[in-house]
Amino acid sequence: MPHLTLHYTANLAGFDADAALDDLNRRLADSGHFEESAIKSRALALQHYRVGTAGVERGFVHAHLKVLPGRDETTRRALSQTIVTALQAQLPSHHPATQLCVEVTELDAGTYSKLVIDASQP
Amino acid sequence: MPHLTLHYTANLAGFDADAALDDLNRRLADSGHFEESAIKSRALALQHYRVGTAGVERGFVHAHLKVLPGRDETTRRALSQTIVTALQAQLPSHHPATQLCVEVTELDAGTYSKLVIDASQP
Amino acid sequence: MPHLTLHYTANLAGFDADAALDDLNRRLADSGHFEESAIKSRALALQHYRVGTAGVERGFVHAHLKVLPGRDETTRRALSQTIVTALQAQLPSHHPATQLCVEVTELDAGTYSKLVIDASQP
Repeated sequence: MPHLTLHYTANLAGFDADAALDDLNRRLADSGHFEESAIKSRALALQHYRVGTAGVERGFVHAHLKVLPGRDETTRRALSQTIVTALQAQLPSHHPATQLCVEVTELDAGTYSKLVIDASQP
Repeated sequence: MPHLTLHYTANLAGFDADAALDDLNRRLADSGHFEESAIKSRALALQHYRVGTAGVERGFVHAHLKVLPGRDETTRRALSQTIVTALQAQLPSHHPATQLCVEVTELDAGTYSKLVIDASQP
Repeated sequence: MPHLTLHYTANLAGFDADAALDDLNRRLADSGHFEESAIKSRALALQHYRVGTAGVERGFVHAHLKVLPGRDETTRRALSQTIVTALQAQLPSHHPATQLCVEVTELDAGTYSKLVIDASQP
């Protein structure tokens, strides 16, 4: 924890998912709410997507941040805003109409398991 | 919002994910509960999947619809049924035993962020 | 139900997603909490991911199990531990520092839909 998952539509040509994750992880670390090494992020490029029914070109990036309880709603809302700001900064210069959406939800602490395993010796 | 995510197993040969999303978006728009342009759907083809342990060929489609609060449980249940009906209509004529599953959950309005950005000029 | 979704980072070279799903389904069936044929699992290999900001090689496996209500928190916690144990057993012998994380959440029974369709005759 935290876990961040991005979905981005493939029509956002030039969206650099790796750069976006670098930037997002840095901003999450800078927020002071998380241990650096615990920030786990991933991005999935969407090949099959639709926005609405009008048949016009539209894209989106959806981000879902999951955090353990212990950060109040004001803090979670600020994290949501931090992410949407980062996504806007990462949007390529040429893009269709694009919706940037961010969810922040809480993990269930009572049943969340985590095991950290050191690198194996080669 | 709403956000719809489909997972479908790769053994559903002939499942047309794009046609399914077109159909689902149209039905969601026709429900009258959402603004047309806000319906964001995506489908992920699953290459690695297992159903049960019996070693027989089985497939599934899983749909997860996320909506903001403001629609009561009866409405959300009706949306769930709308989606399962659409998935059944989209199932290819030849398919293994297939489970169609639909979740409808509520987004957290307090921390959900959305920013709509117009298309950039080329 | 249950639904199990794995995310694993592509730097876990040799992670056998199909073998992991076989093992996980078997353990979930052996738990006695689920009907064998209802266990639906999938794994997504992550091509774009980041762990932290330190620039060192790190990986993760994230598992999310969704179950219908009717299993108490002690049971759900035991299922979480069952999954993390299985993931540890499936980790390839050579791997970077790796975080194994498991979430167990409840589906909303009031809006969950499921339709089981028999195989079509060829």
